[in-house]
Amino acid sequence: MVAPAIRVAPSAANRALNLLRTVQYTHPPNCPCHSNPNHHHHHKTPSMLNTVRRHLATPVDPSREKEYAFEMAASSIRFGPGSTKEVGMDFKNMGAKRVCIVTDSNVTKLDAMKQAVEGLTKEGIAFTIYDKVRTEPKDSSIRDAIAFAKPYKPDAFLAVGGGSVIDTAKLMNLYNAYPEADFLDFVNAPLGKGLPVDKPLLPLVAVPTTAGTGSETTGTAIFDLVSKKAKTGIAHRNLKPTIGICDPLNTRTMPSAVHAASGLDVLCHSLESWTAIPYYERTPRPTNPINRPAYQGANPISDIFSLHALRSTVKYLPRAVRDPDDHEAQSQMLLAATLAGIGFGNAGVHLCHGMSYPISSQNPGYKHTGYEVDHPIIPHGVSVAVTAPAVFKFTAASNPDRHLAAAEAFGVDISNVKRESAGEVLGAAIAEFLASLGDQPRGLKDLGFKASDLEGLVEGTLPQRRVLMLAPNLSEELEAEKGELRSLLEESLDY
Amino acid sequence: MVAPAIRVAPSAANRALNLLRTVQYTHPPNCPCHSNPNHHHHHKTPSMLNTVRRHLATPVDPSREKEYAFEMAASSIRFGPGSTKEVGMDFKNMGAKRVCIVTDSNVTKLDAMKQAVEGLTKEGIAFTIYDKVRTEPKDSSIRDAIAFAKPYKPDAFLAVGGGSVIDTAKLMNLYNAYPEADFLDFVNAPLGKGLPVDKPLLPLVAVPTTAGTGSETTGTAIFDLVSKKAKTGIAHRNLKPTIGICDPLNTRTMPSAVHAASGLDVLCHSLESWTAIPYYERTPRPTNPINRPAYQGANPISDIFSLHALRSTVKYLPRAVRDPDDHEAQSQMLLAATLAGIGFGNAGVHLCHGMSYPISSQNPGYKHTGYEVDHPIIPHGVSVAVTAPAVFKFTAASNPDRHLAAAEAFGVDISNVKRESAGEVLGAAIAEFLASLGDQPRGLKDLGFKASDLEGLVEGTLPQRRVLMLAPNLSEELEAEKGELRSLLEESLDY
Repeated sequence: MVAPAIRVAPSAANRALNLLRTVQYTHPPNCPCHSNPNHHHHHKTPSMLNTVRRHLATPVDPSREKEYAFEMAASSIRFGPGSTKEVGMDFKNMGAKRVCIVTDSNVTKLDAMKQAVEGLTKEGIAFTIYDKVRTEPKDSSIRDAIAFAKPYKPDAFLAVGGGSVIDTAKLMNLYNAYPEADFLDFVNAPLGKGLPVDKPLLPLVAVPTTAGTGSETTGTAIFDLVSKKAKTGIAHRNLKPTIGICDPLNTRTMPSAVHAASGLDVLCHSLESWTAIPYYERTPRPTNPINRPAYQGANPISDIFSLHALRSTVKYLPRAVRDPDDHEAQSQMLLAATLAGIGFGNAGVHLCHGMSYPISSQNPGYKHTGYEVDHPIIPHGVSVAVTAPAVFKFTAASNPDRHLAAAEAFGVDISNVKRESAGEVLGAAIAEFLASLGDQPRGLKDLGFKASDLEGLVEGTLPQRRVLMLAPNLSEELEAEKGELRSLLEESLDY
Repeated sequence: MVAPAIRVAPSAANRALNLLRTVQYTHPPNCPCHSNPNHHHHHKTPSMLNTVRRHLATPVDPSREKEYAFEMAASSIRFGPGSTKEVGMDFKNMGAKRVCIVTDSNVTKLDAMKQAVEGLTKEGIAFTIYDKVRTEPKDSSIRDAIAFAKPYKPDAFLAVGGGSVIDTAKLMNLYNAYPEADFLDFVNAPLGKGLPVDKPLLPLVAVPTTAGTGSETTGTAIFDLVSKKAKTGIAHRNLKPTIGICDPLNTRTMPSAVHAASGLDVLCHSLESWTAIPYYERTPRPTNPINRPAYQGANPISDIFSLHALRSTVKYLPRAVRDPDDHEAQSQMLLAATLAGIGFGNAGVHLCHGMSYPISSQNPGYKHTGYEVDHPIIPHGVSVAVTAPAVFKFTAASNPDRHLAAAEAFGVDISNVKRESAGEVLGAAIAEFLASLGDQPRGLKDLGFKASDLEGLVEGTLPQRRVLMLAPNLSEELEAEKGELRSLLEESLDY
């Protein structure tokens, strides 16, 4: 298959050989499957030919060219028990004088907020507190938050809370910098215009109080776009917090059920980013680096974080859920959530997250055990993990070796597992892990979904192009894609 | 030993237990030695008592308190063959209009510069070129560079070259932002005042053309302070490049000898940061986070990078040195250099680097094979690696399990190695690896040093407090420390 390129010219022959290497070395250094010469073979030729074309300067429609580079960007991270109280000095060091603190009605009562407020007060920094963040934000709740921030004219933002709080703060910061912008301008296409954020925002310090979203390291913010009946978001590197302060003392207040649900989000962040299509299979190749998405596909740096976070989650999540006094496990889960955040923040997520959005928003009335809320709720982590056994069984064919490496992270002895069984084995390992945590639904049926609800879930998943484009093994043709999503959801009804 | 803390109060008892966990979970999640309950035992108690004191709010002299948090900061990284040409768009996206390009007389002739200049020209961005960077810079050469930049009034910097170029550009950027500062204000104490950099600098894009220093990701700049006859530097997170553009096409021009020498720098960056004292053993605990050094000791995030970079270097450096057409190995070494940069940039280096500075500057006249220079030169990577076998034999006692894990990275079967043999085994593995690269000195004698030169080398090492403070197993008492350094150098004369 190298032949056509080689025939172009003698010099092109060497180039083609080097470029073949170029394609090979886009594989992660720790790729467990280097030993297997056929691995990714189906990737090599197109990628290589694209690269050859590029180097031979034959005109090519960039929209059809594949990516050739990847980018790694992450917030600075500070990690230490008690480090929340340093936040006042951080703002003083930045020269901030008016800070808009963003939190929710629950977290505002917790010690994390007390520490943060004391820190700012001690340094004589003026602040205002917005404590009305909605869990699982809607565009309307975000507009309220933005409207609150603008008149205060803050010179910095501080988010203290879980993913909903940090995501809301990112969007307050974004629209504060673009007062004239239409809300949809930056929303992910196709629902919004997906414009890049072309100027720096104000400093944002994020203090997570859950160990799940990893939002403190990413440029992503997720919310319900009610008008379009879809969960979507805004994603750009410039939305990244300046620093994420990961203080293990702040996650001790999580009830066991929240440990479990948020930990399942970490599990899927790491599994989805580890198995996402490789960045060099993504199209189009951006003509300007500002258009290179944060969700760019698996790459050699995100791989390091994703696999590491997966191993930690398997090791520490069950302990963190079981024993509220196991602070080592809780702390390791906070670290794993942040590492997974750096991983998926630069690689992306795919099917589990894509399907989780309609699962959450089309909730038939399920109330998750251990969540003290007056309305039905499927916690994000639960809605993500419920399809995981089916998803990774399905995606394994795209890269059996990577899926075997993931199964190994769950403690499976893969030495005698055939590559064609990788999906079966990983799917089973995930299902068993979920069961071991207790209080987890054994499929969509336990959440109240019926076979008749599947079409709605499929329709609700289709708009999630930004994540579906990273899904390995998913058909590009719409009807085929619908069929595949439908069978994934069907298989997830119960297991 | 927990007893005294527990007797304080019943509530303190629980706290003490949790804090014991706090100390335990500061160990890296991937710490290979969790299985061994005694591991780091000598660390636990003091750390724990410190933390207890802190939590019981007993007044404690902070200068004697140990660190309790770590911070991870790294430049954004773009990696891809041909990505250098994107640099013009990057500056346009940042709104830069006058760029000061920093390079040296050799690199200025290479394709990397051609690509960068074309990129800027294409976007209509004005620039000036400073191509007089000195390899292994001196304060005088840096002052020249600073004097060149000031009148141009750049709004951004672009460094194209190896570590010397990128380090010089960092300092041009620093003193351009502090025109009134005395050169010694920011230089590492005790040689300089070691003031923190308390404001943001101009954007700096770094395009490495060697795979070694990892300077594109760090806030560190190294140079010879001639007046004090010492190699020292300036280190602060704000010196970090905005983005490092790692383009594997740019390192193909390195001669084999440069591949080898720069790869040895990567080897020691990863080994030294992996074995540096843990961050929670460092004193003093900073009273303001701005004073938390970048070189903070080994921590759970730097560990991930350091061990990964070590494994890659062992796997790919010999190939990159042997075969100039092995672009996969060269590319993997560029990635490894960057990953090691993130690792040591947040953890630090210790003895090999500390002793390398006098070894380079007191060069008796050695000219390294393959370096076309008119003056004697011991390449930085060579001066660092020459003491590595003795150093890691010496440091192993501080943490045998970590040293065994490093030996395993060199391919040693450690299943039957006793912990007390960890140093022997790792030292031998490193010596063998160095020999396998060819054209490497088999000790200081091959560089022309004699036993009578050792005192001078010891004296030249002592001022390197910033790295020596991270050296495991080194005595604090001056005479004992001198003795230990002397025997390390003596043992490094030949092997």
